[in-house]
Amino acid sequence: MDEFDLIEEFFTRPARHAEVVLGVGDDAALLTLAGAANTLAVTTDTLIEGVHFLPSAPGFDVGYKALAVNVSDLAAMGACPLAFLLSLTLPAVDRRWLAGFRDGLFALADAVGLDLIGGDTVRGPLAVTITALGTVAPGTALRRDGARPGDRVYVSGLLGEAALGFFLRAGRLSLPPEFQESVLARLDRPWPRIHEGQALIGIASAAIDISDGLVADLGHILKASGVGARLDLRRLPLSDAYDAAFPTLGYDPALVFGDDYELCFTVPPERVPALAGVASRLMCGLHYIGDIVAGAGLTLHDGQGAYTPARAGYNHFDDAGSL
Amino acid sequence: MDEFDLIEEFFTRPARHAEVVLGVGDDAALLTLAGAANTLAVTTDTLIEGVHFLPSAPGFDVGYKALAVNVSDLAAMGACPLAFLLSLTLPAVDRRWLAGFRDGLFALADAVGLDLIGGDTVRGPLAVTITALGTVAPGTALRRDGARPGDRVYVSGLLGEAALGFFLRAGRLSLPPEFQESVLARLDRPWPRIHEGQALIGIASAAIDISDGLVADLGHILKASGVGARLDLRRLPLSDAYDAAFPTLGYDPALVFGDDYELCFTVPPERVPALAGVASRLMCGLHYIGDIVAGAGLTLHDGQGAYTPARAGYNHFDDAGSL
Repeated sequence: MDEFDLIEEFFTRPARHAEVVLGVGDDAALLTLAGAANTLAVTTDTLIEGVHFLPSAPGFDVGYKALAVNVSDLAAMGACPLAFLLSLTLPAVDRRWLAGFRDGLFALADAVGLDLIGGDTVRGPLAVTITALGTVAPGTALRRDGARPGDRVYVSGLLGEAALGFFLRAGRLSLPPEFQESVLARLDRPWPRIHEGQALIGIASAAIDISDGLVADLGHILKASGVGARLDLRRLPLSDAYDAAFPTLGYDPALVFGDDYELCFTVPPERVPALAGVASRLMCGLHYIGDIVAGAGLTLHDGQGAYTPARAGYNHFDDAGSL
Repeated sequence: MDEFDLIEEFFTRPARHAEVVLGVGDDAALLTLAGAANTLAVTTDTLIEGVHFLPSAPGFDVGYKALAVNVSDLAAMGACPLAFLLSLTLPAVDRRWLAGFRDGLFALADAVGLDLIGGDTVRGPLAVTITALGTVAPGTALRRDGARPGDRVYVSGLLGEAALGFFLRAGRLSLPPEFQESVLARLDRPWPRIHEGQALIGIASAAIDISDGLVADLGHILKASGVGARLDLRRLPLSDAYDAAFPTLGYDPALVFGDDYELCFTVPPERVPALAGVASRLMCGLHYIGDIVAGAGLTLHDGQGAYTPARAGYNHFDDAGSL
């Protein structure tokens, strides 16, 4: 049983309140209160020591990343950040670590405009759960279920950078010195694509953030939309650092490792000119990597034939292995 | 450093968004979106195995209680339950335990009208974080900072029942058989005072839920309101089971143990008749236990003189001891 089956089997039920526009199963839930000018997007994510970060991770990085993964979910809905709640489980009070954690947390909160409005602190194994709230105009949020055959598939930024950072830190990869700082920064302090998500409103037909890997996350769009996709691996946006490691790594880390927090989204052909119009205003590139097709499932090709990655993506209750 | 100092030192900053009506430091935060007919109350609480519940606790009780402690925070604001998010950290997938957890969770969700709208499942030490959202008419939420000298202090229901259940299960207390089921039920499946909270809108000047014990939680009202209080211990609502154990326990479990999830609230003298009017419609008794006074601090008396409990309340980062 994987974590998505678990959620579907045990925790998916129809909502009864009219305020609930979208419940379990997207990057964030959507609530529209009576009379409100905006819809509320709400998401929650947990980071656990030893699972999501090393026991040696600096407090700054843990605070930053715990918020970043939630902001990334708001970004994938096209929402504007509003506020967040923090539940912090600590084995003991280490003031120096806590000061770093707070600084990392608030550095990102200030950069994206999120107010800390509540939380809980308890004693236990180190873990951070954040719930983030954002706003989006009613009916405009980017969802997973809007992709249609003929739409183009895009990703923002670069893929596989977090994988490079992880392998480098684990001593399983050597990289030229000039690339090392950049890939570790992408792993530890990903920049959520909040401006890109908002710019895609009215343009993208579906969107998701790449937290579990492109194959798994695009798979969620395909399943929710009832469509398939065909990607050309030669179009994957890979950095010079990745190119340097490509003979060792091949495509898989860019496809299945996850932790990149880029956006994967689909755009109907008639809106591609509009996409080109907004792309020039964004900080990261938007890359056309393939097309939505009728049917189901994802096919990958590299110009020489079909390609199958070794595994599908990060999954907390899949014992098949971990990278 | 206790958990409240920790929050104040590290995580309390003024909010910048106009939507934030009330931030860190009450039972729930309050957000009012532009145009919305209702204000949103948002709260989050975490339960950890080995801290908040025993490793042997049935899934049903863990699911029920994890939601109940959050609903109790909505109750303390007078809010109407709307929706919740669940972050569940599991060491492994135990389908039987999970089915029980789900049943306990949804039993309470259905009873109070909460939709599950999102969440996260990760692998790690067993822990549950829930974020609950409710609605309340703008400007009417029950807060901690409204108590004034001359107001009466009340509590709902019975105090110390969870303590009796805890001591009974730990083998540190014997109780007549006819009382055992009731006190264990109060510990494992507290009924949040959601109807009482809503009925107190327009009547109570301040309110809080008793999760950390009456002394600690009333202390939060006193600090936030800048007032003191004087309580008559002979007025504490204690059950027949508590009376049976009183020679062993004295007043302390009712004052400092916590986990009762009753409401403590204050009422201005001119609204006491209105309180009497609503009290007859509620399922639990509302008990006058003392008065708000000018100054600071809480004084307790039992008719024979001042009384001081052995410790102040449950606190996660206070190493002074645990009950």
